[in-house]
Amino acid sequence: MKKLDKITPQNEDFARWYTDVIKNGDLMAYGASKGSIIFKPLSFGIWDNIRLALDKKFKTKNVQNVYLPLLIPESLLQKEKDHLEGFNPELATITEVGGKKLNEKFYIRPTSETLFGDFFKNEIESHNDLPLIYNQWVNVLRWEKTTNPFLRTREFLWQEGHTMHANSLEAITLTKEMLKVYEDFLKEYLALPVLSGQKTEHEKFSGAEFTLTVEAMMKDKKALQAGTSHYLGQNFTKPFNISFKNKDNQQEFAYGTSWGVSTRLLGALIMTHGDDRGIIIPPKIAPTQIDFIELFANKNESIHLKAKELVNQLLENDLLVKLDDSDKGPGFKAANSEIHGTPLRIELGPKDLENNNVVLIRRDTLERKVVAIDDIVKEAKNLLNDIQENLYNKAKERLNSNFVEVSTYEEFKEVIASGKWVLAPFDGDGEIEKIIKEETGATTRCIPFQLPIEIKNDKCFYTKKKTNRFVAFAKAY
Amino acid sequence: MKKLDKITPQNEDFARWYTDVIKNGDLMAYGASKGSIIFKPLSFGIWDNIRLALDKKFKTKNVQNVYLPLLIPESLLQKEKDHLEGFNPELATITEVGGKKLNEKFYIRPTSETLFGDFFKNEIESHNDLPLIYNQWVNVLRWEKTTNPFLRTREFLWQEGHTMHANSLEAITLTKEMLKVYEDFLKEYLALPVLSGQKTEHEKFSGAEFTLTVEAMMKDKKALQAGTSHYLGQNFTKPFNISFKNKDNQQEFAYGTSWGVSTRLLGALIMTHGDDRGIIIPPKIAPTQIDFIELFANKNESIHLKAKELVNQLLENDLLVKLDDSDKGPGFKAANSEIHGTPLRIELGPKDLENNNVVLIRRDTLERKVVAIDDIVKEAKNLLNDIQENLYNKAKERLNSNFVEVSTYEEFKEVIASGKWVLAPFDGDGEIEKIIKEETGATTRCIPFQLPIEIKNDKCFYTKKKTNRFVAFAKAY
Repeated sequence: MKKLDKITPQNEDFARWYTDVIKNGDLMAYGASKGSIIFKPLSFGIWDNIRLALDKKFKTKNVQNVYLPLLIPESLLQKEKDHLEGFNPELATITEVGGKKLNEKFYIRPTSETLFGDFFKNEIESHNDLPLIYNQWVNVLRWEKTTNPFLRTREFLWQEGHTMHANSLEAITLTKEMLKVYEDFLKEYLALPVLSGQKTEHEKFSGAEFTLTVEAMMKDKKALQAGTSHYLGQNFTKPFNISFKNKDNQQEFAYGTSWGVSTRLLGALIMTHGDDRGIIIPPKIAPTQIDFIELFANKNESIHLKAKELVNQLLENDLLVKLDDSDKGPGFKAANSEIHGTPLRIELGPKDLENNNVVLIRRDTLERKVVAIDDIVKEAKNLLNDIQENLYNKAKERLNSNFVEVSTYEEFKEVIASGKWVLAPFDGDGEIEKIIKEETGATTRCIPFQLPIEIKNDKCFYTKKKTNRFVAFAKAY
Repeated sequence: MKKLDKITPQNEDFARWYTDVIKNGDLMAYGASKGSIIFKPLSFGIWDNIRLALDKKFKTKNVQNVYLPLLIPESLLQKEKDHLEGFNPELATITEVGGKKLNEKFYIRPTSETLFGDFFKNEIESHNDLPLIYNQWVNVLRWEKTTNPFLRTREFLWQEGHTMHANSLEAITLTKEMLKVYEDFLKEYLALPVLSGQKTEHEKFSGAEFTLTVEAMMKDKKALQAGTSHYLGQNFTKPFNISFKNKDNQQEFAYGTSWGVSTRLLGALIMTHGDDRGIIIPPKIAPTQIDFIELFANKNESIHLKAKELVNQLLENDLLVKLDDSDKGPGFKAANSEIHGTPLRIELGPKDLENNNVVLIRRDTLERKVVAIDDIVKEAKNLLNDIQENLYNKAKERLNSNFVEVSTYEEFKEVIASGKWVLAPFDGDGEIEKIIKEETGATTRCIPFQLPIEIKNDKCFYTKKKTNRFVAFAKAY
């Protein structure tokens, strides 16, 4: 068992705080190859729960899971030019096997639009074969230059949905529906409020007609793209020749979408809810919801028996509880529980047992509540619900209170420098977005579907032209 | 919707039968790169169920899931020489990224002993940190020359368990326990009986002290290795320097195990239970347990209403039922259900409705049973249990009745040529195993823990030396 290190306070250095808590919380270890990480049981357990919960939501949209190969033949990726260009610098390339050079190179999938294209081509003959609504939970690889655990790693885990439709309206509707699935899921399970909207042309996915996004705000107020849903139109179906006989007996190219969330959600979770004691895992996604700790257990057999009885009672009531019966002291165990982000801690000592009480300690507010032993299940469930809600509300309040409208580029620079987000009329193109990014570090996050603040200006803060396109800007992970 | 092709009968050509049923059963499509396949919803659904069920069994053995990187740096794989040699010809190698040559090559994991070794090294300091019982569900790649869908593909999905222990006894015990987990799981869920035993030196895993295996018998009587559990001793902990302070305060190398099953189980499933009408999926692992078919549905609204009501009733009772309400005819729907291996089919026609009956048709025996509508849930559950049991019993009978003891190599050749398995005293070494394989196509499958037949000889059929080592031989997938 490793000793716990000191955690750098968030206010002092947020980046160091992040590294400290993921190491101390036993979430990850660095992998053998640069830019790779190992998901230890706690972080993989959270990802497994994300997978289970999100997959259930997918099923309500008739999504079917499949598995497509890891390797993309060179010739296949070259079929869609924008897409190839977007990913080319990051493509890990297999050129040899067992020391022998291959005739054709293979890329490790950075995403699988081209593989699905090649697959769909043979699956679709008539409008009766549509829609196809597929998804896969897989690893992908993008050879990033700068990496950050969970947030940006060369290899990451994700789900990627890929669908085919007989008309654009149906495909566009699904693109929007899947974004809504993400929005609801992030709220309900990860307690993550988001700003939903459309990416600008400059920030959309390479190969998409348009990209929808859910943008979250971390505790340092930086933005994190938490999920995207792309309407691909016929951009992949034309080069891949995915056509079908429509109802009028005409051959027509199908319409596609793709959408995904990845293990960067773990980073989002940590940076949204964590505090100076460590991470905080929302109860609905926590592999362990309750740490049960005996005070002076070594000296007291009756406490140990009672503890085991109560733990069983909690387990029988579908609460994920763990009894820490190692020979560490109760102080260490409590700190250990906090640093691992377990949402609730229950303590039982000799005094408690005498009074027929247990003490419930919330990880989010650190409040202690003495409750009668008979009420332990009910009280634990209530508190876990409260914690889930409180985590969401706190994050929501932060998101709501950090938008600022600007009317000039000078104001824009000040707001961005202060760490807040700008929401303002903007009609600049990709070239202007590049300049703004270079000069301020901020990027366009999205054109929100719903405005979190009232917008007063009707002129672009940069070009000064009249526009009703309101765009959110922020520095982002 | 594709037309169903004719299925080659098993007796005529088993290999073609296999290809026919996996294509017609919508289990797979060929991938864009040679030797790769696409898992379509049905096969991936089965794999997902395998994962969920097996993972539950793992949890009872305190297994924790993790995720380690896909890529192995060249230097890391070179640390264990036997292991490297065993895998070297099959290693897909990344030498460039975005067209630029890398300084170090990376291999795609063919298995992850070396990655876990590198990981464990930093996780273990004292005996208090042991045991570590980890597992991951991942993709691996081995550049096989000849491939066969599910059975041998360059990329496949599997789980690989990797554990570390403070002494050899504990590690050996776990090696055996995990084999038992596989044996029980295969019996309970896949209705797959197996012959459990130890691999010979020649057939053990590259890098193991010994390898345990569960061997299944397909309908063509060929063997299929369904799962393996390896005792690694200190073979990886020494080169990776994974040592700990033991209870006597001495530094000692840890003891390892690894164990896995893969998507070749899907091949095993198909070739164990399938018949000339298509595949048969055991109920406990079937994504769809019941296909509900309305007879003359288009003409009869009352049938459709009743069908929907009954489907809901079955769903509420945790039965995985699907209503086929496409506009195909009932004959097509029935054939479609059979070819997809759905264990039970329920039909409702006008006569049935009049008499308050439904007809339940078993996929395994094709028997039809008329039951009262009120009994539908009870009867369906009973039949599904019967089907699961019957599939196992039939496979078990086949396994039990196809072992033959031999006393000479001539007899050996005859038995192997007849397709049966040999079980006989054998004390030959790896060189002799190679000769036997070359001359007969048979390999040693295992040294069984329990003998399925009584062995009468006490001399090796090949060397004629006295031995009490009884070895099973068969042609294998």
